[in-house]
Amino acid sequence: MRDVAVLGVGMTKFGKFMDRSLKDLSREACWQAIKDAGVNPKHIQTGYVANAIGGVITGQTMVTGEVVLREVGIVGIPVVNCENACSSGSTALREAWMAIAAGFYDTAIVLGVEKEYAQNTQKTVEAIAGAGDVELELSVGVNFPAHWALRAAKRMEVYGTTREQLAKVSVKNHHNGCFNPRAQYHKECSLEQVLSSRMVATPMTQLQCSAIGDGAAAVILCAADKARQYTTKPILIAGVGMATGVYTDERPITFGDMEQRSGQVVYDIAGIGPEDVDFAEVHDCFTIAEFMRVEGLGLFKPGEYDYALDHGESEIGGRLPINPSGGLLAKGHPIAATGVAQICELVWQLRGQAGDRQVEGARVGLAHCSGGGIAGDGAVSVVSILKKGY
Amino acid sequence: MRDVAVLGVGMTKFGKFMDRSLKDLSREACWQAIKDAGVNPKHIQTGYVANAIGGVITGQTMVTGEVVLREVGIVGIPVVNCENACSSGSTALREAWMAIAAGFYDTAIVLGVEKEYAQNTQKTVEAIAGAGDVELELSVGVNFPAHWALRAAKRMEVYGTTREQLAKVSVKNHHNGCFNPRAQYHKECSLEQVLSSRMVATPMTQLQCSAIGDGAAAVILCAADKARQYTTKPILIAGVGMATGVYTDERPITFGDMEQRSGQVVYDIAGIGPEDVDFAEVHDCFTIAEFMRVEGLGLFKPGEYDYALDHGESEIGGRLPINPSGGLLAKGHPIAATGVAQICELVWQLRGQAGDRQVEGARVGLAHCSGGGIAGDGAVSVVSILKKGY
Repeated sequence: MRDVAVLGVGMTKFGKFMDRSLKDLSREACWQAIKDAGVNPKHIQTGYVANAIGGVITGQTMVTGEVVLREVGIVGIPVVNCENACSSGSTALREAWMAIAAGFYDTAIVLGVEKEYAQNTQKTVEAIAGAGDVELELSVGVNFPAHWALRAAKRMEVYGTTREQLAKVSVKNHHNGCFNPRAQYHKECSLEQVLSSRMVATPMTQLQCSAIGDGAAAVILCAADKARQYTTKPILIAGVGMATGVYTDERPITFGDMEQRSGQVVYDIAGIGPEDVDFAEVHDCFTIAEFMRVEGLGLFKPGEYDYALDHGESEIGGRLPINPSGGLLAKGHPIAATGVAQICELVWQLRGQAGDRQVEGARVGLAHCSGGGIAGDGAVSVVSILKKGY
Repeated sequence: MRDVAVLGVGMTKFGKFMDRSLKDLSREACWQAIKDAGVNPKHIQTGYVANAIGGVITGQTMVTGEVVLREVGIVGIPVVNCENACSSGSTALREAWMAIAAGFYDTAIVLGVEKEYAQNTQKTVEAIAGAGDVELELSVGVNFPAHWALRAAKRMEVYGTTREQLAKVSVKNHHNGCFNPRAQYHKECSLEQVLSSRMVATPMTQLQCSAIGDGAAAVILCAADKARQYTTKPILIAGVGMATGVYTDERPITFGDMEQRSGQVVYDIAGIGPEDVDFAEVHDCFTIAEFMRVEGLGLFKPGEYDYALDHGESEIGGRLPINPSGGLLAKGHPIAATGVAQICELVWQLRGQAGDRQVEGARVGLAHCSGGGIAGDGAVSVVSILKKGY
């Protein structure tokens, strides 16, 4: 297996863009990444494109990758459209990384793009519900807020986690988002504001739930041995790991076992353990989710994230910053764009280009996305580790 | 790169099954493949699942692979949902082949599943239209029958191809389908019946257009060096090639240049040329398409398929049988299932298990699917070559 480098990254601002199409968002993210990489788009050998609900929202049910890459002048090459709910972008990255690592290609573009805002928001609600088992879950009303509210209630019972500690994730991530020009929300939220926002599913208030959004993110990958012609300071993909749910009743719902299993895959591939990680972007679709992710991944011990939040350990400047980009809660969460946007953030941080949200001295970053939910378990988890190269 | 073997294949009957779900169809195809392979499903290390329009038709917008494989007891392992319009199943096969060839996994299940029949057929029509560029094509009315009708008219002008010659593809494929117990249609169609069926888009009559259908197909792949424990007569994947459209006006619309480019990729990988192919399953979504595919792939010379049809060269028993399974026209075309079903047919033929439609002495088979259409060109083409192993 060859090492794979990230040559360039690009990302639109995330937000509500009623007048922007999948093509339009993709074009901006791809061109940013192409310019950042300094690569001639004609030299890109393959494309992996992630989109989750474009079929329902825009009517573009199929070949989204071919349609949007054509707008950038990328034609003729193999293109694979990947989907794995909120892990769609991460899955596309993994497939491209595997293809280059194995020597099938030297260069690839990975794009995640999503339109969630629609004239008819009922469409969006229904489309998102399709990340569960539509025959099983929808018939009994276990939607995503309900699922996470149940896990939060259980954690409060088992570990004594407080509503305030849950809310602190939102305060932290909204604070970080204020320093990210591409974030959907630039607004400090006080603990009181988070707790007093509308109750969605007890104890999850509105400011503890990620919102819908539109956006795109793209990265250019290159075999590391070919990357030297473009850069002397590449960022390397140390590995990508994936696992899916096991859906057993024995699984404790206060622990992210799928995160643990996917994390173990990438730690083994990378030869890098959780103790080596300098910062992480994890899938904070709800505040409670951040607890499950960081503890499942071994970045914090089970039950200890409460203490960490109380003591600022996961803030920028803390022992192990979590979601310096603002995370899903503040940066936004256009489904398939999220996993690729996390890679953009890792690259900016590792290059020292993250401006006022820079994690000082960062050499190893971790990105994590979980997607979907089946039978009370997550459907899929993808974890990537990036590091400074050469 | 390691050789990859197909250990087992499974396929539902294709047809109109209003009471069968994605789960139900998947379960049948997967269990057939698992039993055929003699593999414990717990030993399958990864899954690649193709579905194209389930989001619109069934509401299962995301994580279809995880949802349906759980029904077979396959959980925990990496699962990637792939889409590439009519090449979705072929794309899933390619990704799995790459992952095993590269050594990431030893075993994989590849599944293609589709539900096209819906209570509201307007939904199906809209979903299928999403295989084009929805902003560009749909606004000007170039749907798929119109696209292929234009190409047929041009071929008639350039090569003097007759309406009768076009129709002969349908006569041949419907005849072949009569010997395939899993085909959607078991009905001989005379030349007169084909020509006098309802006109859809001149010169394409209804019996020259593939119909919608429901169905699933699955295959189990295994690293060839590990396959010996399961079988002494494996079928090997000699290679898979993919290309996407280039969408230029210079492209002659009477020639399948995308098929040519994807074919060249696989011929180079496999070290097998079109002259070595004993039979082929190609994407006969319309009768005219079969001409474009076989000539683009170099199986017949440009313009010569008219003569070949007149002289029975592509019939079972002819020089180079095309679509012995009945093809899309008779076997049916549940979008994402088609590419995997072609692999099933290749395996049955190469094993000598194809019953009354057996191609005698077949040692090398080729499968081709093209998907989608953008700016008057196909969006993507995937070609696989399988051969008898050891």
